[in-house]
Amino acid sequence: MTSSGRLSNKGDRPNVTVLGAGTMGSAAVRALLSSGCGVTVWNRSPARVAPLAAVGARAASSIGDALAGPAPDVTLVSVLDYPAVREVLGAAGERLAGRVLVNLTTGSPEQARAMADWAGEREAAYLDGAVMATAAGVGRPKTLFLYSGSRRAWEAALPVLRLLGEPQDLGPDAGRAALFETALLDVMWASLTGWLHGAALVGSEGTTATEFTPLVVRWLEEVSGLLHLYAPQVDQGVYPGTDSTLHLHASAIAHLLEASERRGVDTRLVKLYGELTAAAIRSGHRGDGFASLIEQLRAPGPAHRPE
Amino acid sequence: MTSSGRLSNKGDRPNVTVLGAGTMGSAAVRALLSSGCGVTVWNRSPARVAPLAAVGARAASSIGDALAGPAPDVTLVSVLDYPAVREVLGAAGERLAGRVLVNLTTGSPEQARAMADWAGEREAAYLDGAVMATAAGVGRPKTLFLYSGSRRAWEAALPVLRLLGEPQDLGPDAGRAALFETALLDVMWASLTGWLHGAALVGSEGTTATEFTPLVVRWLEEVSGLLHLYAPQVDQGVYPGTDSTLHLHASAIAHLLEASERRGVDTRLVKLYGELTAAAIRSGHRGDGFASLIEQLRAPGPAHRPE
Repeated sequence: MTSSGRLSNKGDRPNVTVLGAGTMGSAAVRALLSSGCGVTVWNRSPARVAPLAAVGARAASSIGDALAGPAPDVTLVSVLDYPAVREVLGAAGERLAGRVLVNLTTGSPEQARAMADWAGEREAAYLDGAVMATAAGVGRPKTLFLYSGSRRAWEAALPVLRLLGEPQDLGPDAGRAALFETALLDVMWASLTGWLHGAALVGSEGTTATEFTPLVVRWLEEVSGLLHLYAPQVDQGVYPGTDSTLHLHASAIAHLLEASERRGVDTRLVKLYGELTAAAIRSGHRGDGFASLIEQLRAPGPAHRPE
Repeated sequence: MTSSGRLSNKGDRPNVTVLGAGTMGSAAVRALLSSGCGVTVWNRSPARVAPLAAVGARAASSIGDALAGPAPDVTLVSVLDYPAVREVLGAAGERLAGRVLVNLTTGSPEQARAMADWAGEREAAYLDGAVMATAAGVGRPKTLFLYSGSRRAWEAALPVLRLLGEPQDLGPDAGRAALFETALLDVMWASLTGWLHGAALVGSEGTTATEFTPLVVRWLEEVSGLLHLYAPQVDQGVYPGTDSTLHLHASAIAHLLEASERRGVDTRLVKLYGELTAAAIRSGHRGDGFASLIEQLRAPGPAHRPE
């Protein structure tokens, strides 16, 4: 019996191998250990493994060692990028066959799909994952994780994935989790940039970000209500301006531009709202709502028009 | 006794005069009537007053008539813009003295401050207000209203303001409500544009906005957590990259740019994140967090630096 067969775990808790002990990998190891799993961990630099071994993980001396013996229930991969994923899994050779791979490494949809194909050729079931939180959120029941890929991997890994956070299944396309991750980060950067811009604006008259922010958080709940209102409009390609029209938005955006210029606050973001709104108005959406701006953003062509 | 003295109201409910029966003014009249207030309404075009008179408002035949007799508890103004406010209130002449004016008309902080001065010269107490909702939200207890200006007006009007929504006091500077309104709309446009961009991205691979949006709404709660984390960083001018560094953000933004280009989705918003991030990195914030971008947005100069 190899050492990996002797992992102690509590009752029927799964055995997991984690390849990569960076910030995210280490957080996953700790979350799994504290849930009672048996955890084997490998990292290129052994220094990052020692503190995990000290709290109960088995330190593998090589990738081959990490994947030696009977397959663990799940093999998690969390390394720098996809080339590193390929290198690490490539070193596992024939030991990949029959395994359930869950890759939490960040990359593009295309990279995830290529990796799924590569793993499939080696008879491994491949699930791609995206952690929608910092490492501090790993192991908390409400932390959002997105997954897509092999149905067999999703079903086999689910008990482990539930120990890391709240797993959200996005279906069999291995690239979808990465695409959603990118799109959600997009929303984050936009919201953060808008908040910073607003903070700069009120800050120019002595209001602190700490005073401003609770109102913003409250306001984002209203904005979420607008998203629910606008989503079917985007899907149907019909944008009734019942809540507000682009004509009114354009006027208010002009006020924001003036208020920004007057206070010496950067205007690039505001000018972008203005450009998009003006273009939509020129396209005939003057009396339509803000959701009509989707037509200025998405790729032109019949493939992206509503059916 | 003039007709305005004969308003029927329920018990000790306030009497309110509303000048302007556009979408927002009409919504206020209806909300106040259904709360049992006595409401007098005037509008330039009488056609908009008739449906309000039909549900119990007193229709004033002129601004002078609207403000005739004993002062109502509160005079609300909701017209097209500030020049219209000045015109309407100018027509009231000496009848403004001693009145409590609450102006819900949208405008700039400078316009609000000038109007507060103008009203003060006429011995009226002036409160400036901003409705952070569409007209449909007026009268709902959770609808956010921002107010700033005369302390006497705030205290006198509060019972009426509570009938319109949840009033938030921003202090004695009459321009502050307008500044906050502009800054909150800024956050809204940024978030909506980011959401539309994300929807265009996932839409390019067949995901509907209706599928994407619940995840975004969930995700905005995480983003709100980041705002609470970052607000004191902005105020202190220190941005520890403990959650994520600009170096990591820059890399992920590059992935988003590539994903957008590959799908023919507009790249202006993404390029703006990229420019701001690159400039902040050049300024020495490579290992700092996203909040350090505030320094790229706000006006340069010692007045806006932390103390």
